[in-house]
Amino acid sequence: MISNLFVVGPAGSGKSTFTAAFREWMLKNEYDTVVVNLDPGADSLPYAPDIDVRDLVSLEDVMSEYGLGPNGAQIVAADLVANYVEELKREVESYESDYVIYDTAGQLELFAFRAASNFLVDYLGEERAMLAFMFDPALAKTPSGFVSLLLLSATVHFRFYRPYINVLSKVDLLDDEALENIASWSENWDKLYGALIEDSPGMYRELNVELFKALESMDVFKKLIPTSARMLYGYEDIYTAMQMVFGGGEDLEKR
Amino acid sequence: MISNLFVVGPAGSGKSTFTAAFREWMLKNEYDTVVVNLDPGADSLPYAPDIDVRDLVSLEDVMSEYGLGPNGAQIVAADLVANYVEELKREVESYESDYVIYDTAGQLELFAFRAASNFLVDYLGEERAMLAFMFDPALAKTPSGFVSLLLLSATVHFRFYRPYINVLSKVDLLDDEALENIASWSENWDKLYGALIEDSPGMYRELNVELFKALESMDVFKKLIPTSARMLYGYEDIYTAMQMVFGGGEDLEKR
Repeated sequence: MISNLFVVGPAGSGKSTFTAAFREWMLKNEYDTVVVNLDPGADSLPYAPDIDVRDLVSLEDVMSEYGLGPNGAQIVAADLVANYVEELKREVESYESDYVIYDTAGQLELFAFRAASNFLVDYLGEERAMLAFMFDPALAKTPSGFVSLLLLSATVHFRFYRPYINVLSKVDLLDDEALENIASWSENWDKLYGALIEDSPGMYRELNVELFKALESMDVFKKLIPTSARMLYGYEDIYTAMQMVFGGGEDLEKR
Repeated sequence: MISNLFVVGPAGSGKSTFTAAFREWMLKNEYDTVVVNLDPGADSLPYAPDIDVRDLVSLEDVMSEYGLGPNGAQIVAADLVANYVEELKREVESYESDYVIYDTAGQLELFAFRAASNFLVDYLGEERAMLAFMFDPALAKTPSGFVSLLLLSATVHFRFYRPYINVLSKVDLLDDEALENIASWSENWDKLYGALIEDSPGMYRELNVELFKALESMDVFKKLIPTSARMLYGYEDIYTAMQMVFGGGEDLEKR
């Protein structure tokens, strides 16, 4: 059975870079892996996709055919992708690979908050699909930014009803102090709580206490997996997390 | 003091159409209102903005200057807007208007999940800023879509720490049954809860119970204000909501 990983996250959070680096790690470790670009508007990708939705739907064609600018064309193109699921799936299956990484649309909302995407994940991912949600370090380094990413990630999870992991991208861009802060928030809710309250405008403190309780009850606190494409760091942890989700902790291939 | 309304929502949720129609309603009722387009990538707007960020930052210029495609250029352009806050503010003030409506970037995440936008809202909106979050009927008509929009709206609220209202756009696109459903979910949490549980895959029911409790404690259940630009319907309720937020319920101008 194929294990499918959908890489999602806000614009600029490093999805394509993550995809490129994780594939590199997988191939180095001899895990047969196919990479699918699902972004019709991708400019230049840091990897050569095995399967590329741009061969089926191109943002430029949509712009000229429908007479739309980039904003409108991105929405239409995202919806059009769903028309090609059968073709995409046939292509994926022709590789007879164990793992598939899907690099999703540049803007999270084009993937996560359009009705077509549920169909896409269900059809392509069948019963073995999970999401990797990217935390951009520029936003994750403040307590309220970190919590808003937790909330956003939980919202996306809720849209798809699929297992997910949270990934901190581009850790090489963070100084030691920021990285330590983020790591401690991710491992210790009390620390995050303290930092958040300290950082909140007075009138919102009480609201944030409630919000925090809500996050606790939603079980959104997962250890964030730090990665760096530049240092090819953290990808073994991603692989292990996939095994935990799909194989109950055992290596799927029992190497 | 100027009352500032920032119109936010996912791609395609009807922000610009709302902006156009709300301005029309405001001017009809003789409330002096300025409209600012904050989307450097806007293609064709359904209104003539009084102030247009495209005069300062143009997506096409960013594409050619930085050698980027539409995806990358939208991110850079969104960040560049923050460099022009002083100029934007001077322009807004020159109108000596009581109300300002800001139509934000086409993609929600470019506005809500970039660090620059907090600065933008704080600087332009000062102490009198609120958000109107658009619910796209295509997503809002399923229970899980509705709840994910509630969560997304709460997340955006949390990013800015500003009062907000939830607006159901394009109600003319909904049939009577769908509209009644959405209205009943928005007014009666028990109904939403029932619909959500019924709609959830078995293994996620328990999670959704927790999620629902979390939403309750976060106080995200607000009555959704239905609007239709085509029928110029619902805008008086938007105006009233603004008065409630900014004026404690009294008409700001005591007409």
